[in-house]
Amino acid sequence: MKTYKVTFLPEKKEIEVEEDTTLLQAAEKADAFINNLCGGEGLCGECRVQIVSGNAHPDKHTLGFLTGEEIEQGFVLACQTKVKDNLTVMVPVKSRAEQEKILMTGSPVVYGEPEKVVLTRRPRERATSYDPLVKKVYLPLPEPTLQDNISDIDRITRELRKVTPYQDFEISLACLQNLADKLRENDWKVTATVARHNDTGRILKIEEGDTSNRDYGLAIDIGTTTVVVQLIHLKTGKILATKGSHNLQARYGEDVISRMVFACTRGSVDPVHKAIIANINNLTRALIKDCRINPEDIDVIVAAGNTTMSHFLLNLRPCAIRLEPYVPTATVYPQIFAREVGIEISKQGILETVPSVASYIGGDIVAGVLACGMADRPETRCLIDIGTNGEIVIGNNEWLVCCSASAGPAFEGAGARSGMRATAGAIEKVEIKDGTVQYETIGKVKASGICGSGLIDVIYEMVRNGIIDQNGKFNTTRQNPRLNVEDGDLRYLIVPASESETSQPITISEAEIANLMKSKGAVFAAIKSLTDYVGLSFDKFENIYVAGGFGSSLNIPKAIAIGLLPDIDTKRMQFIGNSSLTGARMALMSIANYEKTLEIGRRMTNIELSNYTPFMNEFIAALFLPHTDSKLFPSVKYRR
Amino acid sequence: MKTYKVTFLPEKKEIEVEEDTTLLQAAEKADAFINNLCGGEGLCGECRVQIVSGNAHPDKHTLGFLTGEEIEQGFVLACQTKVKDNLTVMVPVKSRAEQEKILMTGSPVVYGEPEKVVLTRRPRERATSYDPLVKKVYLPLPEPTLQDNISDIDRITRELRKVTPYQDFEISLACLQNLADKLRENDWKVTATVARHNDTGRILKIEEGDTSNRDYGLAIDIGTTTVVVQLIHLKTGKILATKGSHNLQARYGEDVISRMVFACTRGSVDPVHKAIIANINNLTRALIKDCRINPEDIDVIVAAGNTTMSHFLLNLRPCAIRLEPYVPTATVYPQIFAREVGIEISKQGILETVPSVASYIGGDIVAGVLACGMADRPETRCLIDIGTNGEIVIGNNEWLVCCSASAGPAFEGAGARSGMRATAGAIEKVEIKDGTVQYETIGKVKASGICGSGLIDVIYEMVRNGIIDQNGKFNTTRQNPRLNVEDGDLRYLIVPASESETSQPITISEAEIANLMKSKGAVFAAIKSLTDYVGLSFDKFENIYVAGGFGSSLNIPKAIAIGLLPDIDTKRMQFIGNSSLTGARMALMSIANYEKTLEIGRRMTNIELSNYTPFMNEFIAALFLPHTDSKLFPSVKYRR
Repeated sequence: MKTYKVTFLPEKKEIEVEEDTTLLQAAEKADAFINNLCGGEGLCGECRVQIVSGNAHPDKHTLGFLTGEEIEQGFVLACQTKVKDNLTVMVPVKSRAEQEKILMTGSPVVYGEPEKVVLTRRPRERATSYDPLVKKVYLPLPEPTLQDNISDIDRITRELRKVTPYQDFEISLACLQNLADKLRENDWKVTATVARHNDTGRILKIEEGDTSNRDYGLAIDIGTTTVVVQLIHLKTGKILATKGSHNLQARYGEDVISRMVFACTRGSVDPVHKAIIANINNLTRALIKDCRINPEDIDVIVAAGNTTMSHFLLNLRPCAIRLEPYVPTATVYPQIFAREVGIEISKQGILETVPSVASYIGGDIVAGVLACGMADRPETRCLIDIGTNGEIVIGNNEWLVCCSASAGPAFEGAGARSGMRATAGAIEKVEIKDGTVQYETIGKVKASGICGSGLIDVIYEMVRNGIIDQNGKFNTTRQNPRLNVEDGDLRYLIVPASESETSQPITISEAEIANLMKSKGAVFAAIKSLTDYVGLSFDKFENIYVAGGFGSSLNIPKAIAIGLLPDIDTKRMQFIGNSSLTGARMALMSIANYEKTLEIGRRMTNIELSNYTPFMNEFIAALFLPHTDSKLFPSVKYRR
Repeated sequence: MKTYKVTFLPEKKEIEVEEDTTLLQAAEKADAFINNLCGGEGLCGECRVQIVSGNAHPDKHTLGFLTGEEIEQGFVLACQTKVKDNLTVMVPVKSRAEQEKILMTGSPVVYGEPEKVVLTRRPRERATSYDPLVKKVYLPLPEPTLQDNISDIDRITRELRKVTPYQDFEISLACLQNLADKLRENDWKVTATVARHNDTGRILKIEEGDTSNRDYGLAIDIGTTTVVVQLIHLKTGKILATKGSHNLQARYGEDVISRMVFACTRGSVDPVHKAIIANINNLTRALIKDCRINPEDIDVIVAAGNTTMSHFLLNLRPCAIRLEPYVPTATVYPQIFAREVGIEISKQGILETVPSVASYIGGDIVAGVLACGMADRPETRCLIDIGTNGEIVIGNNEWLVCCSASAGPAFEGAGARSGMRATAGAIEKVEIKDGTVQYETIGKVKASGICGSGLIDVIYEMVRNGIIDQNGKFNTTRQNPRLNVEDGDLRYLIVPASESETSQPITISEAEIANLMKSKGAVFAAIKSLTDYVGLSFDKFENIYVAGGFGSSLNIPKAIAIGLLPDIDTKRMQFIGNSSLTGARMALMSIANYEKTLEIGRRMTNIELSNYTPFMNEFIAALFLPHTDSKLFPSVKYRR
């Protein structure tokens, strides 16, 4: 079979592929990332690339995604274009995902450690009860005598009982098999690595001499979009470094549903599973290199993700999650050796996956509840996590209820021609004043598109300035030079082509606004339904915590003003960023916190909205800016 | 390299071996068993074989073990003879071990189920609490609905909670990974195999449909000399079949000490470990074939053996057991997958090893305590297990003490020219009356030697008839045609050459009697020291149970009369045979019994006799028939 060379710019990644390979597959092989929402079906148009040299053969049907100008410039859809020549291909910023915002920030603070959480709950602040899930204990043992000739392993556990919370211990056969020699050859000085396993101490390994300082763990957040790995020195509780990257599973679909469809119909679970393992191994290798540690000294991982991500992590088939009645294989996941799924840490290192509650309430939410501390205190609080799904939790130390609503990926930049994820070049803040649009982009570079927080700002600013009405329709009674017809649709101009990175104007249409309103409506309807379900009103919430991938640029007052978030005193509202990672780290660093994730998972009552009539009514009522019932938003006043 | 064919008679086992292979190694390869006590060092003379055809080249030094007549007949020591020709070799009865007494008895009753134990404690007699360590549970599950959409594994554990004693369950990742499909493809009808693991239920596998009838377990006694495997149908508690064979480890030494020396100095642990695994696999294969079951349906093994055997079973180094201060690697052994040590049952099948107490009080004794029920009742009882070591346990439901004394292998037939193990042709009963000797052999065949119970009888009969005095010395004042000088030693003739299988006379010398007196003295001294230690006297024992490899032919009154066993009412004394196997089976068939083995192991206090002065004094006092203190044996009267 003929092979051709394909070079992906700007990174100059080269690959030799067989004839008829698609450009998307070639990019996958070359490790050049190209966005795609639909999993290579030619349905989303996200994988636009520009042929710089060579003859490409795009599938004609998919040219409908491209403007005439784009076609002239050599743009094609990578998933629908087969290689029949040596090619040089430019992947435009908009189609790349390497420069996720999450990657550009070195400090762990970015991951949204709310100050309150840091001060009151971060395990390392409470030295007396600091007790990580896996602990290395140095044991200088007394030598046996005829008066004290208990077995070698009993000699070890006798000491461990004094310094760990466990009474009973488990040990693997392999660990026992060389124990006698190890003790005698090292003058009875060894270090035991002990993990919590159910209520017993599981001895993972016994090392020669004192290795108690070489004791590391990983906290991992497996987001649908991004994966973040944090390296922690368990002896001190210090966060050594954090790295994040896009989720490589995006090759198989942008959102969880399309990945499930791939895994359960066209493809199989295995490649989707392997993608997330590759993510974790890549990030871990980078952390190990930066911090100059030995992977054999990483003995524990706590990972949090939504239920589908947790299934893919463990190579469980998530196929019944997708379809009514939405049944996962498991919500509480077994403690496994990380090597069982191919994660390259210590041979005996364990992987704990934060438990889920149901198919659409995952470990990320359980970790979030842990992180914000709402399950510990008597006052009622609310946690709102906004992504493709909006998950809501309400409760206190006595009860917790939750629900999940499919919000669609609008706030992640999908479904809008100029929408994009929160990566470099995305507009994250917008202000419209006297007909001029001011904006800020991530990375302070030329604008390539607009992300979730930018879209919230845009809608708010458009209503405030009377450009759209409270139904989301353009006000065509007034002249507006920024409002133009394009392909038969009215579009509002945010950034002219001359200013943008892509030389395309950044605009928004009525249909796209309607789509965003559906998303915000679904989230708000879920919050309102759940609040009604428990017989409360918003003002009863001591706090509302907002988590999600917006980045730190989320403007809460504007999010209230468009009716996405409830209208309560913004002092009681807090953006807590990546609370999934925070919760995973807290569980890693404290047995009590880990056990709390199990308790939270058990205590949370999930309300299935797909089965719940009030939700549909609330959804319809929420398709207005801010809401058809203005009494719900007393502080929001638009000029009429 | 040249190869030669060696044929072992009488079984006609043929093997092709390289030049210079020893006959012992060749026999090992050919699976023709030849006794050897010293592990192939040319020190014990037990591996005599007869060259029938071909030229053998025995090492000249070892010819000292053979009489001139034997040399003429072509006898050589197999371990010291190298193959340099095609050979046909006869293995005489005395050098064979295939026909252990244990093998010749099909019925499980032979394994010494004391009647009391059968009636009061055998799990299947108590149907209501019959609860094997591993249980298959058929689960016809309700299909999930939107109102009942718990995870697949929760759906399974919800049902298991109703029918097992467990509240919490563990499951392996492998078992979870194909669960979703298995349930949906089988109409929600599956069978879960659940094992006790700590206090939780460990789900070993989930099978399609109803397999609850295909549910088997093995109880195994790993004796130093013999290995017995028993197949049990766990659903009904029925013993399906029992098979035993010599312990293949005998290749590396007859007793535990020489095997430890081999494993820790000349050789390594691995071959000794592999030998016992081969034993278990051979016996299991034979049981599987006879009972026509699938090895994949055997999901659990409970094995009991002394501490060294348990270490060899699990491939733990027993090297510190042998030397002061006698420290084993472990006394409580982890639950492992049988496949981890190469035992060929179900992939997920588990192996539980009955816990030991100390280096010389093993799981066989703990199983024995379980079997005789002494740890359950308020009256104080005593268990005596006689082998190369004599182990003694005294106690009741409140306390248990134990000790072990090195008795030497005299009662196993070693150390005497005519001694042999309790195999076919061994004299097991002797009576001397009016100068004639009457005897019975195992298997009712021609006598080849004399085993433990026969030796006890011989000593008793010799004292009773005034042939020896109470010091064990021959009475030479009276003429006795059976007393002859041979190689400078006086020897008493039991069986003349003309009547014996080997055409050698079966005789006993003063030195051999002295050796037996040391063995019985050590056992009695241990019983006496331990009884004194707890401040009791023999008459306070409600029962004395005697266990060990004597076979059912042990004559208790004669064992008392020579001072081996305490002089109490023989109605209160009971021979319980292989109580190690009985205990292992009881643990297999009941979780409560298994847990009792752990409790017994923890409760038993071991007294180190090597460190205990009263024992040495008792030992010296016991070197008399029956004892220097005749008040200890009021019922024993010999004519003076």
